[in-house]
Amino acid sequence: MGISALIDKTIENIQPLDEKAMAGARDRQNGLTKPPGSLGRLEELAIQLAGIKAQEQPVIERKAIVLMAGDHGVIEEKIVNWPQEVTAQMVQNILKGGAAINVLARQVGVRIAVVDIGIATEIGQLPGLISRKIARGTGNIARGPAMTYRQAVEAIETGIEVVEAEAGKGVDIIGTGEMGICNTTPSSAIYAVMSNKPVSSVTGKGTGIDESQLAHKIDVIERAIHLNVPDYSNPIDVLSKVGGFEIGGLAGVMMGAAARRVPVVIDGFITGAAALLAVALAPALKPYIIPSHVSAEAGHRSMLEYLGFVPLMNLDMRLGEGSGAALGIFLAGTSARILSEMATFSEAGVSEGNDQ
Amino acid sequence: MGISALIDKTIENIQPLDEKAMAGARDRQNGLTKPPGSLGRLEELAIQLAGIKAQEQPVIERKAIVLMAGDHGVIEEKIVNWPQEVTAQMVQNILKGGAAINVLARQVGVRIAVVDIGIATEIGQLPGLISRKIARGTGNIARGPAMTYRQAVEAIETGIEVVEAEAGKGVDIIGTGEMGICNTTPSSAIYAVMSNKPVSSVTGKGTGIDESQLAHKIDVIERAIHLNVPDYSNPIDVLSKVGGFEIGGLAGVMMGAAARRVPVVIDGFITGAAALLAVALAPALKPYIIPSHVSAEAGHRSMLEYLGFVPLMNLDMRLGEGSGAALGIFLAGTSARILSEMATFSEAGVSEGNDQ
Repeated sequence: MGISALIDKTIENIQPLDEKAMAGARDRQNGLTKPPGSLGRLEELAIQLAGIKAQEQPVIERKAIVLMAGDHGVIEEKIVNWPQEVTAQMVQNILKGGAAINVLARQVGVRIAVVDIGIATEIGQLPGLISRKIARGTGNIARGPAMTYRQAVEAIETGIEVVEAEAGKGVDIIGTGEMGICNTTPSSAIYAVMSNKPVSSVTGKGTGIDESQLAHKIDVIERAIHLNVPDYSNPIDVLSKVGGFEIGGLAGVMMGAAARRVPVVIDGFITGAAALLAVALAPALKPYIIPSHVSAEAGHRSMLEYLGFVPLMNLDMRLGEGSGAALGIFLAGTSARILSEMATFSEAGVSEGNDQ
Repeated sequence: MGISALIDKTIENIQPLDEKAMAGARDRQNGLTKPPGSLGRLEELAIQLAGIKAQEQPVIERKAIVLMAGDHGVIEEKIVNWPQEVTAQMVQNILKGGAAINVLARQVGVRIAVVDIGIATEIGQLPGLISRKIARGTGNIARGPAMTYRQAVEAIETGIEVVEAEAGKGVDIIGTGEMGICNTTPSSAIYAVMSNKPVSSVTGKGTGIDESQLAHKIDVIERAIHLNVPDYSNPIDVLSKVGGFEIGGLAGVMMGAAARRVPVVIDGFITGAAALLAVALAPALKPYIIPSHVSAEAGHRSMLEYLGFVPLMNLDMRLGEGSGAALGIFLAGTSARILSEMATFSEAGVSEGNDQ
């Protein structure tokens, strides 16, 4: 590939799912005390986890969300109603435990690795913060590239390295989360470029803008693509021209996790854009991804369809932070426990149906 | 009403949701550190819980599933592939902790109250079993009524009394579950009668039958309705003619819970049939119900629409036992924790969007 030694090696290490473990999990699933298939998506999910982890009874106990935070120079174009400082303020809120993702993480038993990969505000070394700042926000994509090619490579490498650190602590599943005021804008740009769909069809209202602001946001993204001419066949080029540091970082998280046979639960529109880049760089990682939910952001449903993912939930959420991923981790853990802990027909002395 | 002293009093005790608590919860929701509305269904759910419990910050800690088990004489018509003994065998499996609902209950932190309200097999006083058997299974509805009018009243009273016992232990939320080989058949019959929809449009394959068996099942239900002439304007009559003991019991659970301001999370097609009867008897209980999921059973989606419920999840499940309800209880508890535990903008020192 020749992107960088770390990225090339990571991509090489991504193996197909383990068919033998999946067959074993499927057999066990059919012997459990329930009509075959009656747990629907939870049965499929447990079998996918078996294939990912190469374990007939996959264990999902040590759970982490990697939450990458970064800022976006395109905020100068006045496309959102929130000031840029909110990225840093929300990261501090998350580090103190007051954000939605903290409540969800406590409820599901997930730890959160919070990474400053490109926050514009200087927030220093806060307790619990993983400081890997590449720059103080990206460049304004309406006037130039988001970052250099080298910085795009560095963002992806950062994600791989964060997964390495999490693996050192022990991790059975990783969810992806993000925080970055304005980051639906680069996400729509990436999706438009990678899919060749019209910008207007893949751009939504993010955290909440009106119709005239939406028209302006679409115009800004169209200008950014026209100006930077990202090459859809080169995901690093796309990331550097119209992406974001947290988006590149999360693409790296997905690659690093798949290379270690760790399932990755993706969240909403922004982590979906990261998945578009990651899958383009390393198509073999696709079955390692578990789509948690379809968000209320306009382009997310079509993005998931484009990726070939069927979301587990639709709760009209549009928060980010990994909030949907936390719920997806809960379902994944539940599916694995069902596979391991339920009694079989013979263990329980229950008669099987006569068509089984 | 004049059904029975207990049922009449229970219906009288069901009050509207508390608007003041809902307004308070909505205000708090909008001050939490997230874009307003960005947690979608989870925000609505927390506000509903506030109204049900008359608490601005509802507490959902003590969680129970009431699982009612009963058998069905219509099994003589050979409409399922499972022998009747499986109801009793699965109840024993549940009491030993080996069924899907046990794993889900452990995962979500829910206790299970297992009630024998009409199992055909004599299983005696097993540890943990609440023995409230009304009869050893219903009559074959293809040849006569399921039960007497007095037994139908007793089934509903049993549900109310089980809730009373659970309330004595302390309970913040109740889910409904059931076990009963063949019980999609009376459920389809109830739904067809109450909605005046054709039997063929509300009858599915239950735990798994083929097309010719499905045609036979539809024929059996049509005969049962033709023979028994249930009066759709009298839910007790419908229950006695074509219902089931566990279905009546669960209708009573819903009424008893609503009368005590306890939210009820319903499960799939069978507990949906119980909800049809309960809502017909006590329309005021409707907002106390939280629909957990739409199941893979053919008539369930239209049943939820008929009831005016939008399910939280669609995981293609069709198991029963309260499996979907357990997941719904998880989401309800999560929504309540988010409302109580998240920081507000002022607490966290986060700037608000300028259109808020």
